[in-house]
Amino acid sequence: MANEVTVALVGATGAVGQEMLQILEERNFPVGELLCLADPSEAGSKLKFKGQTLTVGRADAQAFKRADLAFLAVGTEVSRSLAPLAIENDCVVIDNSYAFRLDDGVPLVVPEVNAGALTTHRGIIANPNCSTIIMVVAINPIHQAAGIKRVVVSTYQAVSGAGKAGLEELDQQVRNYLHNDPMTPQVFQHQIAFNLIPHIDDFVEGDYTREEMKMVWETRKIMELPDLKVAPTAVRVPVFRSHAESINIETEKPLGAAEARRILESAPGIRVLDDPAAKSYPMPWFTSNRDEVFVGRIRKDISIDNGLAMWVAADQIRKGAATNAIQIGEIIIQQNLY
Amino acid sequence: MANEVTVALVGATGAVGQEMLQILEERNFPVGELLCLADPSEAGSKLKFKGQTLTVGRADAQAFKRADLAFLAVGTEVSRSLAPLAIENDCVVIDNSYAFRLDDGVPLVVPEVNAGALTTHRGIIANPNCSTIIMVVAINPIHQAAGIKRVVVSTYQAVSGAGKAGLEELDQQVRNYLHNDPMTPQVFQHQIAFNLIPHIDDFVEGDYTREEMKMVWETRKIMELPDLKVAPTAVRVPVFRSHAESINIETEKPLGAAEARRILESAPGIRVLDDPAAKSYPMPWFTSNRDEVFVGRIRKDISIDNGLAMWVAADQIRKGAATNAIQIGEIIIQQNLY
Repeated sequence: MANEVTVALVGATGAVGQEMLQILEERNFPVGELLCLADPSEAGSKLKFKGQTLTVGRADAQAFKRADLAFLAVGTEVSRSLAPLAIENDCVVIDNSYAFRLDDGVPLVVPEVNAGALTTHRGIIANPNCSTIIMVVAINPIHQAAGIKRVVVSTYQAVSGAGKAGLEELDQQVRNYLHNDPMTPQVFQHQIAFNLIPHIDDFVEGDYTREEMKMVWETRKIMELPDLKVAPTAVRVPVFRSHAESINIETEKPLGAAEARRILESAPGIRVLDDPAAKSYPMPWFTSNRDEVFVGRIRKDISIDNGLAMWVAADQIRKGAATNAIQIGEIIIQQNLY
Repeated sequence: MANEVTVALVGATGAVGQEMLQILEERNFPVGELLCLADPSEAGSKLKFKGQTLTVGRADAQAFKRADLAFLAVGTEVSRSLAPLAIENDCVVIDNSYAFRLDDGVPLVVPEVNAGALTTHRGIIANPNCSTIIMVVAINPIHQAAGIKRVVVSTYQAVSGAGKAGLEELDQQVRNYLHNDPMTPQVFQHQIAFNLIPHIDDFVEGDYTREEMKMVWETRKIMELPDLKVAPTAVRVPVFRSHAESINIETEKPLGAAEARRILESAPGIRVLDDPAAKSYPMPWFTSNRDEVFVGRIRKDISIDNGLAMWVAADQIRKGAATNAIQIGEIIIQQNLY
């Protein structure tokens, strides 16, 4: 039986925070005391955890002093200010934002891929970008078997990537459509209902978005392949919670589709859904509210000698964010890394 | 002034047929007489053309005898039976189905790419697959400039690809969603609202769908590159009319993104929308009901030496079907090929 720890959940009222609350309960995370923290404007609101009503408090030094472990499910700027405060108060931080992901000394961890990196932490562990988590869980077993040279990936990303407000905007816009009311984009750059937006996060370099470059930078760090070639295109689609990705992989060694399927079937965190005759393949409506990364349409890439194509989907809020962070927390506790 | 011809429009009551009717009018196609034909069950229904009301008739030998040119906007099986009947009656066929596309002696034509192939026809000209038309318009100018070695393409295909019934199914399912009613898929394999289905047409070989293999086979024929390497993934998305495609191209010679953009800006049938800072890129909601192929997100493929990535969208019913067929018809008339 693991030690029970005092857990601070910062951003407890957001989409990822609320999911974390549920997953902490589902997985019977060894929570002694749970401090639900949020922006001062949300302090005082009530949340349910294991049948108890908890009052949301402020994320301040006092709170972090009481906590052993803090999950930050807040924006990058808020993480930048709160993480140092938590560390000063001897609280290990598992941060969901982009703030520290590429910093030296900050492990960027997907437990199925690089749990070993956790031992090197200096107080902050970064939870990777959602699309990156989903991709590396699916491609790492292929890399272990045949060595990956190049990845071409096109994403189909759910609106949950923009949090509760993103979920509400899609819902509102389909209502507007049915009532012939105008759709006014607020969260996304353009209307998202019945549309596709090839623009997630800001444009940063070479006309790639930061979301796309995260899939390059973070994949290299997690897989410890600093020269891995990744060609990403990130697209927002009118889907609620599950991201999907069309992935073409070029490998060093030949690896047949059947063998790849067998490898993926026994890989951690993956569920293979790949029976085309039975119309079985991963689809967002059905992979939502689940923790696994679903992989299907596994087939030879017919355009190169050593290549595979696959279609991957996973819940962006769960494995793409909350579940992965909590898995990290479980290892931190099991291995006494706090 | 071109000769006026008698035109038979078969499948006039379907999604593509209705669009053709509108485009024939918009483009002032040199129609002398228009025979709207359809399945016997639809005979007698009324359609509007240039302010006149036309009665839908039966697609039979008598009708084809009167017509110089027949557009077939019907399913593959119906085309297989009607095309020979039209030819026997000296009527040149422009067929939208898959029936004859890969047959020797049947030109498969996208006017911006291979209009020259029309001179070799023997009575039937095939209109290509929608995703293929959209892709080849966008990639052919790149091929002319730098030689294409390999294409990796992931599609985001609108429900209009399944005709009126597809459009109605998405509309109905979002209504069901808002009323908490169950969604019962009839046209698509699974629910399409708020979902993604990586399965269009049947699975045919190597766990690829026919829709995917069309993008291989038809692209090779249209571009006259029998060995072109194409790796396709075709996915249905909850969008009404415009398909989109994420395309990664490997070229023989280096070609910078800026130069590619200039080439595409002056290429026929293309409109470049590529100003990320101004949030300008192709999106289905805005590229619907338009004839051009919209290209944006033109950038270097950062995973290879000679590569480009781009994002393409175009109205599946228009350039993906009806407009392309009518452009073919215009050339047939201008060049007296009937």
